[in-house]
Amino acid sequence: MTVASQMLETYPADLGGIDRQKLAACIEACFECAQSCTACADACLSEEMVDQLRTCIRTNLDCADVCDTTGRVLSRHTGYDANLTRAVLEACAAACKACGDECAGHAEMHEHCRICAEACRRCQSACRELIDSLG
Amino acid sequence: MTVASQMLETYPADLGGIDRQKLAACIEACFECAQSCTACADACLSEEMVDQLRTCIRTNLDCADVCDTTGRVLSRHTGYDANLTRAVLEACAAACKACGDECAGHAEMHEHCRICAEACRRCQSACRELIDSLG
Amino acid sequence: MTVASQMLETYPADLGGIDRQKLAACIEACFECAQSCTACADACLSEEMVDQLRTCIRTNLDCADVCDTTGRVLSRHTGYDANLTRAVLEACAAACKACGDECAGHAEMHEHCRICAEACRRCQSACRELIDSLG
Amino acid sequence: MTVASQMLETYPADLGGIDRQKLAACIEACFECAQSCTACADACLSEEMVDQLRTCIRTNLDCADVCDTTGRVLSRHTGYDANLTRAVLEACAAACKACGDECAGHAEMHEHCRICAEACRRCQSACRELIDSLG
Repeated sequence: MTVASQMLETYPADLGGIDRQKLAACIEACFECAQSCTACADACLSEEMVDQLRTCIRTNLDCADVCDTTGRVLSRHTGYDANLTRAVLEACAAACKACGDECAGHAEMHEHCRICAEACRRCQSACRELIDSLG
Repeated sequence: MTVASQMLETYPADLGGIDRQKLAACIEACFECAQSCTACADACLSEEMVDQLRTCIRTNLDCADVCDTTGRVLSRHTGYDANLTRAVLEACAAACKACGDECAGHAEMHEHCRICAEACRRCQSACRELIDSLG
Repeated sequence: MTVASQMLETYPADLGGIDRQKLAACIEACFECAQSCTACADACLSEEMVDQLRTCIRTNLDCADVCDTTGRVLSRHTGYDANLTRAVLEACAAACKACGDECAGHAEMHEHCRICAEACRRCQSACRELIDSLG
Repeated sequence: MTVASQMLETYPADLGGIDRQKLAACIEACFECAQSCTACADACLSEEMVDQLRTCIRTNLDCADVCDTTGRVLSRHTGYDANLTRAVLEACAAACKACGDECAGHAEMHEHCRICAEACRRCQSACRELIDSLG
């Protein structure tokens, strides 16, 4: 069991009816994607053709920040606010969609973009599934 | 002129038709609110009646993270994505609304909550004005 | 292979003689600890005896922020600066030591503190090993 | 009075003998520098000669993250830990030194680097003064 799942198991109060497995999966996907996008921005920065990767770097930086914040918000359960959770998840799905599309466009040239695009897709799906489960 | 405004003035490319003054005001409000919410969460944590401030602390922590990320996203202009900007601003306005309401409820008892509620209101307004100006 | 390791494998330039396995382990430990500390602060906040967990919450919040930043700095390799890497790793080891000690003191009462203390220990060790390998 | 100063004034417990004015100045310098470095990384990314600004972008990103975390740690006073504060301030001074030097090297070519170098110098000095005052 991951640490994120263990932390959910040991939360001392009610999780407010949220789907625990989808929540754990989304938290993990957010942190994975935050790391991947931070690394991909830096890998792009070291590419010879960096001038063609400007938008990719920018989108990676945004996506890293949004995923980071989303992973933090989802790691808190005290005084749960469905409205805010939903708005943050929508922003995260949008950031992952934008970054996944951008990285996918460079995936054939750059392996780091291919790996990062997949991390973005996983995170986008995890956000979408969690949004749907909020009812 | 603030540093945030100076950085906008010296950005070497086009800002993409965004309202420069509203953008600068929103960036500054985001960083101010991120600091204020971080400090208010900690001040609440030191109050004797901390057990009645649990939701306030949690909302402060979320708002700090969302404002921080929003301030960063708004500080970038390369490869501007209106969709993502809007989604992030909506999440920020929601976080500031939730935190402003929560802090306002404790404003008569705790000066730090009163000051923080005002920072949240300013940031919420700045986000809303910027969203409206995006057209 | 984790995404962090895959991103290291596909970095297009030289990693500057850093130990790749220790680097990957440290990046992963930082993100795991950032999540764990964020969740532990929130779990403490929901405990009935929250007034006895003030220092634990504060230390968790600091440790989450420092681990987050350290994980980001370590995910970048372009223009590597050994001095800065070392200073950031020292701060991270100090934060993990403080938080691991604090959480360990509540581990018998609170399972989330026990799990979080272990994440802090792992991250502290990973930072220390990476510092030693920098030569 | 800035919001950061107001939050310090209304903190409900003892600040632990720390110099309040130096603390407020350092918190403000950290948030200002975090914003400035985020914006400078993005401005560099839009420069025609981006391939000569790789190290500058990377150092800006690191400095933004370290300043952000330092500003947050300094905004908390509950359960104050001088050791951790000092380690974080040392990392921040190192990041600001590295980024200030790097940006200064491009200051004649790029106004955003000149402005950002000044923000880094101010933050480095503020960290150094606060470290010295910790005794």
